[in-house]
Amino acid sequence: MTASSVSAQDPNSFEEPALRSTVTSPTVGIMGGGQLGRMMAAAALRLGVETRILQTDRSGPADGLARVFTGDWHDESTVSRFAAECDVITFENEWVELDTLMRVMPPWTKLWPTADAMAGVRDKIRQKNLAKAEGLPVGEFRACATLDEARDAAQAFGYPVLFKRPTHSYDGYGNRTVEGEADVQGAYEALADGGRVLVEKFVPFERELAVLVARSVSGEVVTYPVAATVQKNHRCEAVELPAPIPAAVDQLASELARRTAVVYGVVGIAGVELFQLADGTLLVNEIAPRPHNTGHYTIDACVTSQFENHIRAVLDYPLGDPSLIAPATVMVNVLGKREGATSLEHLPAALGVPGANVHLYGKREVRPGRKMGHVTVVGDTLEDVRKRANMAAERLLL
Amino acid sequence: MTASSVSAQDPNSFEEPALRSTVTSPTVGIMGGGQLGRMMAAAALRLGVETRILQTDRSGPADGLARVFTGDWHDESTVSRFAAECDVITFENEWVELDTLMRVMPPWTKLWPTADAMAGVRDKIRQKNLAKAEGLPVGEFRACATLDEARDAAQAFGYPVLFKRPTHSYDGYGNRTVEGEADVQGAYEALADGGRVLVEKFVPFERELAVLVARSVSGEVVTYPVAATVQKNHRCEAVELPAPIPAAVDQLASELARRTAVVYGVVGIAGVELFQLADGTLLVNEIAPRPHNTGHYTIDACVTSQFENHIRAVLDYPLGDPSLIAPATVMVNVLGKREGATSLEHLPAALGVPGANVHLYGKREVRPGRKMGHVTVVGDTLEDVRKRANMAAERLLL
Repeated sequence: MTASSVSAQDPNSFEEPALRSTVTSPTVGIMGGGQLGRMMAAAALRLGVETRILQTDRSGPADGLARVFTGDWHDESTVSRFAAECDVITFENEWVELDTLMRVMPPWTKLWPTADAMAGVRDKIRQKNLAKAEGLPVGEFRACATLDEARDAAQAFGYPVLFKRPTHSYDGYGNRTVEGEADVQGAYEALADGGRVLVEKFVPFERELAVLVARSVSGEVVTYPVAATVQKNHRCEAVELPAPIPAAVDQLASELARRTAVVYGVVGIAGVELFQLADGTLLVNEIAPRPHNTGHYTIDACVTSQFENHIRAVLDYPLGDPSLIAPATVMVNVLGKREGATSLEHLPAALGVPGANVHLYGKREVRPGRKMGHVTVVGDTLEDVRKRANMAAERLLL
Repeated sequence: MTASSVSAQDPNSFEEPALRSTVTSPTVGIMGGGQLGRMMAAAALRLGVETRILQTDRSGPADGLARVFTGDWHDESTVSRFAAECDVITFENEWVELDTLMRVMPPWTKLWPTADAMAGVRDKIRQKNLAKAEGLPVGEFRACATLDEARDAAQAFGYPVLFKRPTHSYDGYGNRTVEGEADVQGAYEALADGGRVLVEKFVPFERELAVLVARSVSGEVVTYPVAATVQKNHRCEAVELPAPIPAAVDQLASELARRTAVVYGVVGIAGVELFQLADGTLLVNEIAPRPHNTGHYTIDACVTSQFENHIRAVLDYPLGDPSLIAPATVMVNVLGKREGATSLEHLPAALGVPGANVHLYGKREVRPGRKMGHVTVVGDTLEDVRKRANMAAERLLL
């Protein structure tokens, strides 16, 4: 870690001199030792950039990596020892607690994205309000503070409607489809956070799309290709490229994703989820201000992966090329199917599928539905790569 | 680490049951913490396979990785603690000392390649004799035990001739071109090992080629595309694919490389270096029984990298696809240009070159000529990717 000469300034100000001029061998701190932290650290390793990881428990993905701190986000001693070794800190997950970090972080250490940017994303009500205020196309929603307001909103939109917890909801956790008035109270009680719940009008979309955007400290932006996501129970099962959409929709998706990342002040990678409606128009569904599960395909299918571009972006290095290297790509998530200790018993069977890029996250325990890894296959036709990716994922039997 | 039920057998026998049936989550031990060990460990991490590294000093490349043992190859305590945690042990370098390991290795732990296979490769005189005995095409050579024998050999072949130290020679260290009789004594004294020196007739080759072969425990073999290597002072400066050779020469190079790997009993990756003569025929120059510097391009340019296939091979997993993903690839080595502590100061400039895949090895110290990293660029034409790879490598100014 190298001290910089700009410690008197706001460490997250865009006006200050670029990092590259002050730190010759920066260390990147990663809050979170799950699969995203693991893959960020692997991308940094390749570049020769040092990392530190701060994780709350020894769940496994950070096991193969050095310089891992384990402790609670609120444990000042651990957090400050971690932060003192970092020039730049980033995170794998928008739910990471930043209060203690902000208090103990050395003045020359930068946090990307900033805590302010994070605050605009973490609370889904704030996120939706900001999108609407900026004129981004979003579905109808109401921020409800009481059960009665939630019932009124649901009635006004017409059933089914979607109830969402404003914070800590992801991967279908914290979301519920409400089919009729009889379900309102139960959903409200399950999801309300300080009484607040987000009620969204049901969007009869034809397709879900996801676009990754990388944005560096000094504002360089690159946009990855538009992916079609295959969802089941609000969870991403698979990602396919190219998305089967007209060229104009593809271009629109890129533009909206890019603007969304800028509106929320993201630095690093952002995953932007979009709905495509029957008439071809798009709505912005959600933004995740970090490397995104829908972007794991980039490791094997793009010139520069989302993880490397995240590291480049937070260090204010030039961003890498997001282009695809092959005509067709499918990434399939590998979800746990049982409870217990993980095993590589079926890995050889999966590796027997030609061209299967198998990624396992090193989680010590498997649980039904838990993300244990992913498989990416690239090739000439979607039909072929989809078949091979699914075959390898199924063979893993985790 | 899981104990197997076959410990009574020769742990390196080809007849014993495949590893996959006895070890559900194997740990791979890597002897050597240089860049090859680092990239092997990174490939294992991606697969969810645990590794242990045994290194002799903290030079840097293993710094970002966990579970690294540091100690001398002869230090029984360190070597046995390392070996006790491994199901399979492999190495990054054929000069690793195996004596202590062989003595303290648990009976269920396997070493790949075997110590026997290694012995046939490590001593260049044995290596040449074995090639000749197996009918592999090699240049004329003589194993000389005295200065007089070396002088006679040089005279018989005609100057210039090549003198090589039989052991511990690599990257031009341990080789010397002898231009006339006046240089014989100096070269002999500098290179003789127990009095022995290998004298090779000068081969007027037109081009140097390199082919990687992956061979698994149970004998599956895959061969990577034929690369042309650009050498300077007996060191590889760059690797280019496709090699500018006729299809029949390409096929011949693959066949010879494959047979060479089998002759030497390699398990894992082997790098086979070939000379192409004016008439298009080939000679086998050398074999390195491990991931090879000429194969670093495979990380960014092939479906499965040499490092992942090394891990797969020593675990007896199915081997991955060695195919290229683009029409043209150039890999350029990044060599140190000065003495001192390393710095990433110029990394951003290198990353500013479009499509540059920059790999730095995390070595703490830079020295003139030391391998500090490499750059790979893939694209449509050799001319374009060569230009970009050289530009990025030059900008690193390490």
